[in-house]
Amino acid sequence: MEHEIPTTEVAAAPPAVIAAGLADQRAADVVEVLNEQPLEIAAEIISLLPRDHAIAVLDQPGLDREAELLVALPFEAAGPLFAGMSADRQADILRDLEDDVRDQFLGRLDPDSRATVRQLLGYPENTAGALMTTEYVSALPNWTVGQTIEHIRKVERTRETVYAIYVIDPRTQKLVRAVSLRRLISSPPDAPILSVAAKTRPLSVTAQADREDVARLISKYDLLAVPVLDRSGHMLGIVTVDDIIDAIVAEGTEDVQKFGGTEALDEPYMQISFLGMLRKRAGWLCVLFLSEMLTATAMQHFGDELQKAIVLALFVPLVMSSGGNSGSQATSLIIRALALQEVRLRDWWRVIIRELPMGIALGAILGVIALVRVAVWQETGLYNYGQGWQLIALTVAASLVGIVTFGSVCGSMLPFLLKKIGFDPASASAPFIATLVDVTGLVIYFSVAELILGGRLL
Amino acid sequence: MEHEIPTTEVAAAPPAVIAAGLADQRAADVVEVLNEQPLEIAAEIISLLPRDHAIAVLDQPGLDREAELLVALPFEAAGPLFAGMSADRQADILRDLEDDVRDQFLGRLDPDSRATVRQLLGYPENTAGALMTTEYVSALPNWTVGQTIEHIRKVERTRETVYAIYVIDPRTQKLVRAVSLRRLISSPPDAPILSVAAKTRPLSVTAQADREDVARLISKYDLLAVPVLDRSGHMLGIVTVDDIIDAIVAEGTEDVQKFGGTEALDEPYMQISFLGMLRKRAGWLCVLFLSEMLTATAMQHFGDELQKAIVLALFVPLVMSSGGNSGSQATSLIIRALALQEVRLRDWWRVIIRELPMGIALGAILGVIALVRVAVWQETGLYNYGQGWQLIALTVAASLVGIVTFGSVCGSMLPFLLKKIGFDPASASAPFIATLVDVTGLVIYFSVAELILGGRLL
Repeated sequence: MEHEIPTTEVAAAPPAVIAAGLADQRAADVVEVLNEQPLEIAAEIISLLPRDHAIAVLDQPGLDREAELLVALPFEAAGPLFAGMSADRQADILRDLEDDVRDQFLGRLDPDSRATVRQLLGYPENTAGALMTTEYVSALPNWTVGQTIEHIRKVERTRETVYAIYVIDPRTQKLVRAVSLRRLISSPPDAPILSVAAKTRPLSVTAQADREDVARLISKYDLLAVPVLDRSGHMLGIVTVDDIIDAIVAEGTEDVQKFGGTEALDEPYMQISFLGMLRKRAGWLCVLFLSEMLTATAMQHFGDELQKAIVLALFVPLVMSSGGNSGSQATSLIIRALALQEVRLRDWWRVIIRELPMGIALGAILGVIALVRVAVWQETGLYNYGQGWQLIALTVAASLVGIVTFGSVCGSMLPFLLKKIGFDPASASAPFIATLVDVTGLVIYFSVAELILGGRLL
Repeated sequence: MEHEIPTTEVAAAPPAVIAAGLADQRAADVVEVLNEQPLEIAAEIISLLPRDHAIAVLDQPGLDREAELLVALPFEAAGPLFAGMSADRQADILRDLEDDVRDQFLGRLDPDSRATVRQLLGYPENTAGALMTTEYVSALPNWTVGQTIEHIRKVERTRETVYAIYVIDPRTQKLVRAVSLRRLISSPPDAPILSVAAKTRPLSVTAQADREDVARLISKYDLLAVPVLDRSGHMLGIVTVDDIIDAIVAEGTEDVQKFGGTEALDEPYMQISFLGMLRKRAGWLCVLFLSEMLTATAMQHFGDELQKAIVLALFVPLVMSSGGNSGSQATSLIIRALALQEVRLRDWWRVIIRELPMGIALGAILGVIALVRVAVWQETGLYNYGQGWQLIALTVAASLVGIVTFGSVCGSMLPFLLKKIGFDPASASAPFIATLVDVTGLVIYFSVAELILGGRLL
């Protein structure tokens, strides 16, 4: 990738030198340098940047520790920078501040901005309300194309995007139509704005909509921004495509982390504290461990069988892990299919119809491999599985079919179940499925053993 | 979400009725209906839509079976539709066609378009070249702002985006500067275009760049499009933000599927054939199974110990799975951290420094739980672990510390290793890690047992 800044070289330089070097860099590049600096140095660098550039840097969502950075600056420097930032970013920062410091910063805003930020602060995280900006271009229904373009020219500097223009009814304050700048500039200046707007009511989301739903809408209809309405149709703000990309990436991170069996970290790996990380990981690990203790109970239950045919113990890890692996495959496929809405909740039975024969087929393949393995080891004298080795091999093979089928069906149904009861399907982590299948796998294995070996070896 | 079409209702209606109902629907909504119809019905519906609408629908990346749909139509209908589509989408379709049909469709294009599509066909999938469109707005360096806007008006209908304008040197055909439409409309019409363009050379990618790198650039700098250059700086096309969102979502799907231990399906779950899915899943499952067979070998190796203290077998599933679970946690965290470039390849030792104490702490927590469990079961008479039960408990606890530490370190290093040798770090799937850790876990467990129980129980 081009345009990377050699961060290691500047790392040791004094703040003033770094700041001078960053003055003509893109805001996103400055952010990368700041994120690698100690807090005090980073704050000092910000205070040395030209004011507009400092504000652009603070407005970047990629900037870590943004609240700490502002607090680390003297308030006479931090206040004006804060006041210059966009409202959604101001709200992000205020969320991280102590009450008294928050009031101090809120005090720097004019009453209008303060009201806007207070409103944004009211929306729960990861909703359209929390993601949206109030800095959009609106127009009146009786304007012409020319008037609208003239208006855009005037307000352009203070708007996050000017590529979508929203026509608002002045009486009801409701959103009437949306027009793209593209349509405006390709239309005659004296045409009424409503005559060039799309004929259909604009797509919109409510302030409470989950960021995943907003992302789906923007990506499905290739939008650059989507308006956020309150329940009565009044326009509150817009969510722009660049905010939604960050949200999609964050969702992807959450999904992978959850699927790996951790709580979502919410912080970069290298920055979360040791104790914070321990908490996020130990919780799930303990729950899994406690559930997995059922395997010891199951093994104890089959203690007699084990005594009589210790050779059964040899294959416990193998059959158990196969169930976990096939379950983990099925789960990951369904988590994604649900997330992309390729599969809906009501399709669960179609999935069973696919997974049942799939599990049997996969289990049969592994079963054959197991048969061959035992036979080869026995016949070549690599290991002696005892007199009834054919029956042992059959036990392993038959239970593999059962366990892999159970793993596939179970693994594919768990995300549906979680979604149905209101959880994130991605919480069906690979370790979760493995644990679920391990205990049942043992029971299947020993039951098959009793069936096949009963009266002979057992 | 608003604006959903009640697909179940229209499903049984005759094609002409469905087509009439879809005539004023958004292209993305028509796509959803078509994807749920049998191929012949879907093709007939397309043939009944107004031509421009049909082309817009075929241009949607969400449309499945797009090549089959065109082939299912009579060629006199399919040809003009194909010719109206955008070049990048034409290339997508030609990739899926047999050679003779491909030539037939290529024959419908004028020589210029044919050359463009042939060029697009040459780029490997998932690269900037394969994602890009050649339909962008370019301007000459000696134009004024007004001239440029006038030019945009004229070409607007045939361009994928008009919000970024690229100034090309007419002599060298190289990209000189990029200007946003936003800057153009807020600048005086008689200003030279170069005077309002950004002062820095535009960000760009090469045609060979991976879609992940393009996504990172667009998301980092909040771009609406990024120009694609050949090695000598000639402009080939642009990748727009909506294409990149689709690519980010597809990458996320691949990552979750790989992490779950399947090959990336590349097709929706409900649409891939049974055999296709079996192939994608059986491959990895067999590899894992063959590796996991080493657990049987390990168990065989410790056969004598098992004979003497069958009680050791009871805890095999428990200690083994704990290693897998902690490994899966660590792997998922590092896969994401690497994907987001929070962690670079050279940071591997920093990660070890974090994971080593983390593993010891997590292992100690689980070890204490195990100690308590054995003691409670023994003392309350729920199970009799025999005379040396304290030593058994100690063995389980101590090996948990070892195994969880090993799992965490191993799990965190595997993505680095894969990346280093040129693989996708996401191939370090949860089952892969579990398998890796299972075998070693058994060896650790029995070695600790020998150390603690040697001379007493063993």
